[in-house]
Amino acid sequence: MTKIVECVPNFSEGRRQDVIQRIVGAMEQVAGVQVVDVQSDIDHNRAVVTLVGDPQAAAEAAFRATAVAAELIDMDHHRGGHPRMGATDVIPFVPVRGVRMEDCVQVARQLGERIGSELGIPVYLYEDAASDPARRNLADVRRGEYEALKEEIGTNPERAPDFGPVAIGTAGATAVGARPPLVAFNVYLNTDDPAPAQAIARAVRHSSGGLRFVKALGLAVEGETQVSMNLTDYRRTPIHRVLEMIRSEAASYGLAVTRSEIVGLLPAEALIDAARFYLQLRDFAPEQVLENRLIAEE
Amino acid sequence: MTKIVECVPNFSEGRRQDVIQRIVGAMEQVAGVQVVDVQSDIDHNRAVVTLVGDPQAAAEAAFRATAVAAELIDMDHHRGGHPRMGATDVIPFVPVRGVRMEDCVQVARQLGERIGSELGIPVYLYEDAASDPARRNLADVRRGEYEALKEEIGTNPERAPDFGPVAIGTAGATAVGARPPLVAFNVYLNTDDPAPAQAIARAVRHSSGGLRFVKALGLAVEGETQVSMNLTDYRRTPIHRVLEMIRSEAASYGLAVTRSEIVGLLPAEALIDAARFYLQLRDFAPEQVLENRLIAEE
Repeated sequence: MTKIVECVPNFSEGRRQDVIQRIVGAMEQVAGVQVVDVQSDIDHNRAVVTLVGDPQAAAEAAFRATAVAAELIDMDHHRGGHPRMGATDVIPFVPVRGVRMEDCVQVARQLGERIGSELGIPVYLYEDAASDPARRNLADVRRGEYEALKEEIGTNPERAPDFGPVAIGTAGATAVGARPPLVAFNVYLNTDDPAPAQAIARAVRHSSGGLRFVKALGLAVEGETQVSMNLTDYRRTPIHRVLEMIRSEAASYGLAVTRSEIVGLLPAEALIDAARFYLQLRDFAPEQVLENRLIAEE
Repeated sequence: MTKIVECVPNFSEGRRQDVIQRIVGAMEQVAGVQVVDVQSDIDHNRAVVTLVGDPQAAAEAAFRATAVAAELIDMDHHRGGHPRMGATDVIPFVPVRGVRMEDCVQVARQLGERIGSELGIPVYLYEDAASDPARRNLADVRRGEYEALKEEIGTNPERAPDFGPVAIGTAGATAVGARPPLVAFNVYLNTDDPAPAQAIARAVRHSSGGLRFVKALGLAVEGETQVSMNLTDYRRTPIHRVLEMIRSEAASYGLAVTRSEIVGLLPAEALIDAARFYLQLRDFAPEQVLENRLIAEE
């Protein structure tokens, strides 16, 4: 079975298109991996690249991009709306097909070691690749951003990197990790009052008592209201369960779901799981999907 | 975008495993196509092979298998429960990805011409590849089976083949065609009385006033009852619409759907369409499925 990971490196450059192009170009030269998406944001001053392909090829592409970004981006002169601590800020690996989370963890650790030793950039492992539970959460790893880390790295043992020097240069530091596929899922309600969407967001999200792998906010968006979510592990908190909970909560306000949306990419499995639930397909095997047979037998 | 068709040749041999193996072996030698399933049935005395891959490679594999089957199967000595008219009885091509129905029609016609001229076997085009509306339906083409066709082919102009000789040998005749993917979908009810399943089958199937691309029977199966269906064009009569109609009909008997099942293979798209319906994903693009990006950029 062909092994496929998704890798989503984030770079601290969202304005100079020539710099973004050189970073992306370094990744495109690696065989066995495809750049499927590049999003850059001027306000955030950040670029998010989506790669898919062979795990080793994705790691090689991320390494080369990190080297180019270290040359072209000076964190002492970087300003932007999004929290960041390095020229290459984060590199998460995501299992897609024929790859377990443990494989992604191993790829992340090997890449981290290489970035530390060959490029002299401090590396912090996070999420499923974290060396310590206190470093699982990216926000904790990146606390105070580049500026705070620069001051603390040499003096606070809690901020010692997993790989690379205990000192920071103009490329800053990089977080390398492994995580499940993230699904950005928004559900719209038939009201322009944001209060019910906000209450429903509190009901479904983990932080206030809801489902384990849901982050949620209630928002007003151009005359509509939505429950805007990140599903951080769709295998354990599936899309259909989230939607049905929202539908039930909305009904208690006399409201209905008008539509939903997926922002960006997701694995076919996430939607096939929803189809299995609603169609009551009790004994369905992934091998019954024609495309899965093809890929399995390559 | 990689072009993928499914091709499901049926052979009039379900008992002699060595013969089936030689037929399948001939197809496995062709590069660019995979044999993903082989089902043989002793009572039907028939084997159904599922190939997936490049359209031209699938046609080449089907051609070689037809040559082998003509050598090893003598229709004058074939008996079995399933209607048949040839050693290689039918060869349908099914568009799966990056291929339109018109492409499958063209592949079917080219293969039919080649079987007729190079193997001297009469070929009838059927379904979307039919040369005449009267030949769309396979049951009409195969009327009276091998034995009737043998008597009529030389005397009844209505039975003249599309390709090949107006005479039949021990390999019989072959129907070559193009059709949409067929989804075998069964829905179970919480009763052991087959009458409601039979009434619901009549409600949903095309032949008695129901949905255009549904064939259905109500059956008792091992203490359960099911509405057993073939969905002959899931793009125009989608799975979810069939299930919801059955659910509504069942409710009028005070019954509920306990589960459903897909028999055999189906394209991922058929289930993703169901997920889009139930999740109310109004603006979802196929390119948002990670695997589709990968295949598109190969």
